[in-house]
Amino acid sequence: MRVGLDNFRAVNWHHESGGVQWIEQRLLPHCFEQVVSIDPENVAMAIETMQVRGAPSIGATAAYGLALAWTKDKGRFFDFWLARFRSTRPTAVNLFHACNAMQTCAESNPTAQQIIEYADAYADAEVSANKRIGKTMAEFLAVGERRILTHCNAGWLAAVDWGTATSGIYHLAHAGEKPFIWVDETRPRLQGARLTAWELNQEGIDCRIQADGAAAWMMAQGKVDAIVVGADRIAANGDVANKIGTYGLSLAAKEHAVPMYVAAPASTFDANCSTGLDIPIEERGGQEVLRMDGVDIAGKFQDVSIAAPEVSANNPAFDVTPFTNITAIINESGVWNP
Amino acid sequence: MRVGLDNFRAVNWHHESGGVQWIEQRLLPHCFEQVVSIDPENVAMAIETMQVRGAPSIGATAAYGLALAWTKDKGRFFDFWLARFRSTRPTAVNLFHACNAMQTCAESNPTAQQIIEYADAYADAEVSANKRIGKTMAEFLAVGERRILTHCNAGWLAAVDWGTATSGIYHLAHAGEKPFIWVDETRPRLQGARLTAWELNQEGIDCRIQADGAAAWMMAQGKVDAIVVGADRIAANGDVANKIGTYGLSLAAKEHAVPMYVAAPASTFDANCSTGLDIPIEERGGQEVLRMDGVDIAGKFQDVSIAAPEVSANNPAFDVTPFTNITAIINESGVWNP
Repeated sequence: MRVGLDNFRAVNWHHESGGVQWIEQRLLPHCFEQVVSIDPENVAMAIETMQVRGAPSIGATAAYGLALAWTKDKGRFFDFWLARFRSTRPTAVNLFHACNAMQTCAESNPTAQQIIEYADAYADAEVSANKRIGKTMAEFLAVGERRILTHCNAGWLAAVDWGTATSGIYHLAHAGEKPFIWVDETRPRLQGARLTAWELNQEGIDCRIQADGAAAWMMAQGKVDAIVVGADRIAANGDVANKIGTYGLSLAAKEHAVPMYVAAPASTFDANCSTGLDIPIEERGGQEVLRMDGVDIAGKFQDVSIAAPEVSANNPAFDVTPFTNITAIINESGVWNP
Repeated sequence: MRVGLDNFRAVNWHHESGGVQWIEQRLLPHCFEQVVSIDPENVAMAIETMQVRGAPSIGATAAYGLALAWTKDKGRFFDFWLARFRSTRPTAVNLFHACNAMQTCAESNPTAQQIIEYADAYADAEVSANKRIGKTMAEFLAVGERRILTHCNAGWLAAVDWGTATSGIYHLAHAGEKPFIWVDETRPRLQGARLTAWELNQEGIDCRIQADGAAAWMMAQGKVDAIVVGADRIAANGDVANKIGTYGLSLAAKEHAVPMYVAAPASTFDANCSTGLDIPIEERGGQEVLRMDGVDIAGKFQDVSIAAPEVSANNPAFDVTPFTNITAIINESGVWNP
């Protein structure tokens, strides 16, 4: 999608260097920067430290990282690198989906070019899925649902290109509609305020950032026509693990009969989890809650303490929304039902 | 309540200077500082700029500020100062309650000492109400409700002393119980992370700060026994205006049958508002959402931009929770029913 006048993906193969290139998302929205590395450990670290985040982008980054590992350190591919990438994040099942796909590819002993093409095809398949998801979602949203609320970033940064939840918004806008977006800032990491709002603004879509606590109140006032969110893992019964705060949103949506759509490619579905209770929920460090970074008036990055220094934090990164609270789950094949 | 080894109030008359003294709450938790002023305009500004906040503390500060105006600028008391103080914040009805009380007092043409004593009595009455509120609330919480969630700051900083919602927690702790508190950070101004957590820590009460979006998920997991919050205004039908996010909390509480208690002194009740729809909701500037201040590693205050710089914010400061979502409203007379 657009950054200024050019088009980018969240992650791609960098042919000039024979390495992986990704957008350093932790610097956004203050600074747009791409990183290139020819060291697979750097790619694993980029996932672990959330330079790249969002379930489909995590999957594609692992696919490229494993292609890189195959070209640079083939001898340790099966014994070390597969496990290394699988250990980077626990909740997004796309990661494991991508690692399994790359394992299968590697078992056929491909050439370097073949495994790179395989990773490219994996990323392309995600992008193509996102486009189809967006097309279906836009049909739902087009029926008078103009004031759309979204939580976290289920945009192109999270999903290689187009996005999952935001793909429908982009399709509407490209078709000449004028969607208006309430962007939940999404504490603690502020992916809404930082990434989604930035993405929407680059595409010229009108939006407002709000504290997460404001969402239910906007619904109570009749100012939200629909909610769109992505997913980090979807269980066989349709329960959805997504960014912390999604579950609370779903309760307000239910109370006020606001339709809530979940968008995710097939790689996000995990038939091995029969319900949401089987999905591992990542607990992250308390510093994400207790500190905040941003840029000062001189444009310099600063990291500040924002809470009582003697107190620690509780930081579950995801929650689980039961299928009964969701209006429709949309994937690349259309509306998905458990 | 305690700060280190000493006891403080959020606001008091400063006899040495003949002025008003308050805790500069915007510097907390990084820096504990009291401000003294003999200029009533500074006191009005302290309310407006949220150096002092929390409905009962706002009321007491206005009472002291008007006593100061009477002693320093009696000629403009009725024509200017009453209106000046009434215009400082719109939602907390305690402000108007205090201004009305001071107007009545002034109409009897009191001496300086008499009006100061009247303001002192106003503040003392709030503190005494808080103690009685806490006693009643502790009886509710003592029935196995140990893991208590609170939102914003309804502590002693917000309510001169003891607090409204937290008064029950302090009563439990003083009685030798061991309450554990989930503290919603309460975006955008983080009164939970900054003030409530700091207060609880000073009193030696165990607590964890969490993102507001985590509250519903903690309830879904059965990790919350009760919720206690304060109120900025309570309508005749029992609808409660309180910090943005309270309404969403109430939906999760209802869903999971977690008791939700609202605590407020009589000065918070507004019989002129028949329902929550009549309560004016303050819209604050977007910068509260888009910027954040804190202290860097060197202990220096920094103000940083945390969101996409081209995008503006939606910032309703309060929301309204219907009485039907609340287990009990507790005031100094016991359980209040509409």
